[in-house]
Amino acid sequence: MADDRPNPSGEDALIARYFKPLATDPGAFGLMDDAAALDARGEDVVVTTDAVVEGVHYFADDPPDSIARKALRVNLSDLAAKGATPAGFVLTLALRGAEASWLTEFARGLGEDARAFGCPLLGGDTVSTPGPAMISITAFGRAPRGTMVHRSGATPGDHIMVTGTIGDATLGLDILKGGATAAALAGDSAAQNYLVGRYRVPQPRNALALAVRDHASATMDVSDGLAGDLAKLCAASGVSAVIDASRIPISDAAAAVLARGAAGIARLVSGGDDYEILCTVPVSRAASFAQAAQHAGVAVTTIGQVVAGTGAPRFLDARGKEIALARLSYSHF
Amino acid sequence: MADDRPNPSGEDALIARYFKPLATDPGAFGLMDDAAALDARGEDVVVTTDAVVEGVHYFADDPPDSIARKALRVNLSDLAAKGATPAGFVLTLALRGAEASWLTEFARGLGEDARAFGCPLLGGDTVSTPGPAMISITAFGRAPRGTMVHRSGATPGDHIMVTGTIGDATLGLDILKGGATAAALAGDSAAQNYLVGRYRVPQPRNALALAVRDHASATMDVSDGLAGDLAKLCAASGVSAVIDASRIPISDAAAAVLARGAAGIARLVSGGDDYEILCTVPVSRAASFAQAAQHAGVAVTTIGQVVAGTGAPRFLDARGKEIALARLSYSHF
Repeated sequence: MADDRPNPSGEDALIARYFKPLATDPGAFGLMDDAAALDARGEDVVVTTDAVVEGVHYFADDPPDSIARKALRVNLSDLAAKGATPAGFVLTLALRGAEASWLTEFARGLGEDARAFGCPLLGGDTVSTPGPAMISITAFGRAPRGTMVHRSGATPGDHIMVTGTIGDATLGLDILKGGATAAALAGDSAAQNYLVGRYRVPQPRNALALAVRDHASATMDVSDGLAGDLAKLCAASGVSAVIDASRIPISDAAAAVLARGAAGIARLVSGGDDYEILCTVPVSRAASFAQAAQHAGVAVTTIGQVVAGTGAPRFLDARGKEIALARLSYSHF
Repeated sequence: MADDRPNPSGEDALIARYFKPLATDPGAFGLMDDAAALDARGEDVVVTTDAVVEGVHYFADDPPDSIARKALRVNLSDLAAKGATPAGFVLTLALRGAEASWLTEFARGLGEDARAFGCPLLGGDTVSTPGPAMISITAFGRAPRGTMVHRSGATPGDHIMVTGTIGDATLGLDILKGGATAAALAGDSAAQNYLVGRYRVPQPRNALALAVRDHASATMDVSDGLAGDLAKLCAASGVSAVIDASRIPISDAAAAVLARGAAGIARLVSGGDDYEILCTVPVSRAASFAQAAQHAGVAVTTIGQVVAGTGAPRFLDARGKEIALARLSYSHF
């Protein structure tokens, strides 16, 4: 530079180098200001926040781009489940240091996903920590006023539907931990890679957001395990549910693990990190929803029915016998 | 409970017990949903995010309510500087455990400040960490479309003004670290407590937000040190500045430390954590701004002038001699 202005601090240089290229929204002001301005366009701003911690939500040696993608996608998944269109996000990054190779890959993954999902970086904060790294993202979506879909609203008789497949991520995590899943799939690296990929990089169903908004009586994303999350949805709606476990969609890789006895269906429905959409749809809307989902290219499966009552949801096997679930979902405390 | 629904997870119970009472905005849905809905009321949503890390931004044994207040107030300070009215915030809390006494005090401080500043809790995420605790807050404000005040916009001739007093927090931190400030103020516990209080619990100038929006050509809050933050504002505006250091407002406690030779003015203007508003005001608006500030009950002081050029701002002593600044501000990396 031709002037005598001091060099920017390491923090500013880090932001300028790695994250300014991601700040494509005019309301981000190129990350050169203290705040961002989000144009709500006359709609509600739907706000969600989720954090991931090194060693808790991801492994320190996970590919940095996958860590970034997961941190953003778990938030995108909430926006999808609520029927909102992504509008942007802010990033808090707590790091022990600023390793260029890690940051380059992290920013590349984050930038690719921000573009792919139409969710630009609006701002953030970068701090040092002596402890594990942590990435906290707050994401924003837009939805016409009052149209955000809630956990409450499920009514007896409604179909219970889920997107994609359930239980892959918990098996992927088991592989990374060297658990029984790895042994069951020894030699089948394609299946192992598929399950690990499902753990590391969720596939948020944002393509389904409008269909959810137009059809669902209640929704949430499945992040802490289908059984526990369904229990939460039922509690919020004041209803119960009966699930036909044999109809729960599972991947070929997960089916192979089940066939080899390394895990049971109870494991798949109580594991976390699915990031699929769980929703209830009135019978009269089910066909239309299925059609909209097909149009959006997202697989949806009816797995049961909302019933009256306040008991925990029941998962029945193919013979109608209730499946015992040792734990419903993951909890941090 | 009369039903057989399983007990909520520890995480859910923690949220219900400590944080649900803070979620007073209808858009928070009692923290019972996956996202919040923020009614923008036809305005821009101004978004800012700041995190504090145990051992970096606060001490592990700081009073929990003060930790909460600081985490929220550093964000409120950004909203104030940008001319936005607080609308709400989301909280990410990474904790090693869930100690009831700590959480009770933390939630009390947070709730009191949320009410006092009209900034309700909208949502959040609670995660476990094996490392230092971390509190990340993303706060939202409203401002009429396009009225957010930027760092850019300062023009040669504009007055440079700051609120409150500068340098108290860095001296308060020095006391907590057992530095020279503690010795200089030995026996004067009132002064020590004042400075420590300024470090632990900033006083964001939200009362001044409308006056800033109506009068300032450029603003930011002083968080990383006056000298460094002024340099950033000047860089964003493409100008330079001359500061009359003798006019920089300092508290009686800070003046006592200076008088006893335990710190110099250079230390005060390069220390962090002031959370005062730094703004530039056109000469024609200066009297009106001063009047508005008086009406808002916030002290403002003119400390210098914007000048043409691209050099670093110059701080001159009472004899017009430039003060050498070893470092401009705090950086994490």
